[in-house]
Amino acid sequence: MTQVVTVFGATGSIGRSTADLLAQHADRFRAGALVGGKDPVALAKVARELNASFAALADESAGPALAEALSGSGIPSGAGEAAVMEAAARDADIVVAAVSGAAGLKSTHAALRLGRKVALANKESLVCAGDAFMRDAARYGATILPMDSEHDALSQALAGRPLADVRTMMITASGGPFRTWTRERIAAASAAEAAAHPTWSMGMKINIDSASLMNKGLELIEAHHLFGIEPERLDVVVHPQSVIHGLVYWLDGAVTAELALPDMRVPISHCLGLGDRLTIERGRPLDLVTLGSLTFEAADEARFPCLRIARAALAAGGAAPTVMNAANEIAVAAFIAGRIGFYGISDLVERACTHFAGSYRTAPADVDEALAIDAHVRIWSAEALPELRAAG
Amino acid sequence: MTQVVTVFGATGSIGRSTADLLAQHADRFRAGALVGGKDPVALAKVARELNASFAALADESAGPALAEALSGSGIPSGAGEAAVMEAAARDADIVVAAVSGAAGLKSTHAALRLGRKVALANKESLVCAGDAFMRDAARYGATILPMDSEHDALSQALAGRPLADVRTMMITASGGPFRTWTRERIAAASAAEAAAHPTWSMGMKINIDSASLMNKGLELIEAHHLFGIEPERLDVVVHPQSVIHGLVYWLDGAVTAELALPDMRVPISHCLGLGDRLTIERGRPLDLVTLGSLTFEAADEARFPCLRIARAALAAGGAAPTVMNAANEIAVAAFIAGRIGFYGISDLVERACTHFAGSYRTAPADVDEALAIDAHVRIWSAEALPELRAAG
Repeated sequence: MTQVVTVFGATGSIGRSTADLLAQHADRFRAGALVGGKDPVALAKVARELNASFAALADESAGPALAEALSGSGIPSGAGEAAVMEAAARDADIVVAAVSGAAGLKSTHAALRLGRKVALANKESLVCAGDAFMRDAARYGATILPMDSEHDALSQALAGRPLADVRTMMITASGGPFRTWTRERIAAASAAEAAAHPTWSMGMKINIDSASLMNKGLELIEAHHLFGIEPERLDVVVHPQSVIHGLVYWLDGAVTAELALPDMRVPISHCLGLGDRLTIERGRPLDLVTLGSLTFEAADEARFPCLRIARAALAAGGAAPTVMNAANEIAVAAFIAGRIGFYGISDLVERACTHFAGSYRTAPADVDEALAIDAHVRIWSAEALPELRAAG
Repeated sequence: MTQVVTVFGATGSIGRSTADLLAQHADRFRAGALVGGKDPVALAKVARELNASFAALADESAGPALAEALSGSGIPSGAGEAAVMEAAARDADIVVAAVSGAAGLKSTHAALRLGRKVALANKESLVCAGDAFMRDAARYGATILPMDSEHDALSQALAGRPLADVRTMMITASGGPFRTWTRERIAAASAAEAAAHPTWSMGMKINIDSASLMNKGLELIEAHHLFGIEPERLDVVVHPQSVIHGLVYWLDGAVTAELALPDMRVPISHCLGLGDRLTIERGRPLDLVTLGSLTFEAADEARFPCLRIARAALAAGGAAPTVMNAANEIAVAAFIAGRIGFYGISDLVERACTHFAGSYRTAPADVDEALAIDAHVRIWSAEALPELRAAG
């Protein structure tokens, strides 16, 4: 049976990989609505290629340009929040939620409420409002399919077996571009240096998060919600080759794991296949002999304090991860803009977590509350930036 | 519900690890019949510890000594083939088939015919009569649980998913004690040098097979029967740390694998648990950071011709693996006795395979036929030994 696939974040890195797979398996999939941010040309191109049922841009002002770029295609389009919500409401079997940042919460939640199978690449949904998302997924009969390579690896390694038989779950970190750098050298690093990810090809924000290991912290928080596993049973190991993505340690000493060369199409296809394995054109097979060795190191929380801060936020619970994520978005933007140094990111995030520790003790009850906390912390964080520079 | 576990090969390495687990999980398991080879003292000791329902030795002459060693325990005992068959017929939920060599075929097959869950550590059952064993398992409703670490790893990595989604299955080889040796040095190696296995603690015969890589050849043949996978979709990689035991390569480029420190109790407990995970006392957890690296090399069939010969026998099918296995048993015994050099093993095995290529084109129809071929090839191989020495 053909599966209709709607994609939120259709022009981003995950969206383009998804489009590649949908085109390769046209017998199996049909494109539903495609939603982009503000690039009418890129969205129109993929919508035409996949003959999408609808195209929408979040940026309302880009509506006319999108309609123009789609003229003659017969593909209806729209722009702005109403159009995005229309895209969410359109018929779909699988919704790929790949809008990055807090911006992705509403559309992801809308897909959940409709009981869809949601292939989740938006980290913030679970980081900012994990309790609410998991509760509503159960309430509305939605399925969350983790699309991150790490979480997809954990779900392959778990293979549907009970959590009671699991001792710990572990995700791997490439270690980022600063893995071998001293603290002093990291402190003076530029945004371009931080964005040079050694193994994965991704967006700027996520590359900075990989350099700070905040990305792994966010993934631990996601794993906690996705698998219902306690924070103390979750761990990270640095594995520079990014070949093993996640490992499940069982009570009996056995460990199951998923390996693949870094290629987002692998976890995406595993989500889209709903249990079946899809072939991937131009996929690179894993050749252990050519690789020669897989290496492992402990994650250094002294040089990478964001990982420590994220683990503390996960352990604290309540809205601590929501606060942390908002402060991190502001901090990373400030770092990219050259307003703060690399350790300014962890400084600001830690200050925000400390400042708001008493205010937001309970987890956000819904998306609106999560977004309200997010907005509040962003304003505070932006205001704290000059102070941070003065202190630094 | 308590599971009654009968053990064939109770005094060997697998049998002792099994006994350790049964004692640790006395709430879950009860010992049924325990069968040993010829050591009455060792068998009586484990039978008393586990309060077995019956004890039998294959060696008929050891019967009185066994009865003496068990006096006062209330455990009935016997010796010789009839006693072994009585042990097989006794009530059991799980039968651990851990008698090594062709000697294990009959008792293993008897357990299959009774529709038991057979935890299979005897390699020769599937190598010598794989078609007949798999056919009879299906016919009599028996379940074969692979107890080798490699096959248990493949079954964990497969996790019940369909073979149609699998590209290849790969098992790992430690590479044995001669992994880094030159061909000249290997040619002059002693049996003691060949038996010094780097990672696993096992019996003499299997250590020599590990040194020649024949062990991996036998395991490929077993994997073919266990999983119903074609020879050309099976492969071996040398992995000196013996941490990853088996890998399943999927169509989409993902690879699932099982890892554990070398400890036979891990696959044994996975078989006995029937899907549940049992804790293992004094088990060593896998610590990737302490290990530091996992390395991989291609298997060198020039220095280790037994692997090439075994792959050829697997591809040839029919009774080629039966012939190969019988010749290998004679050759390894002759090597241990100092009658031939290390490459005398592969020379004899290859000669036997060539000599019998025309005689045994079809797979043995049953255990008796497999044992008849085995006996015939053993006689021929023993007679070929002096000739081999003269040629060598």
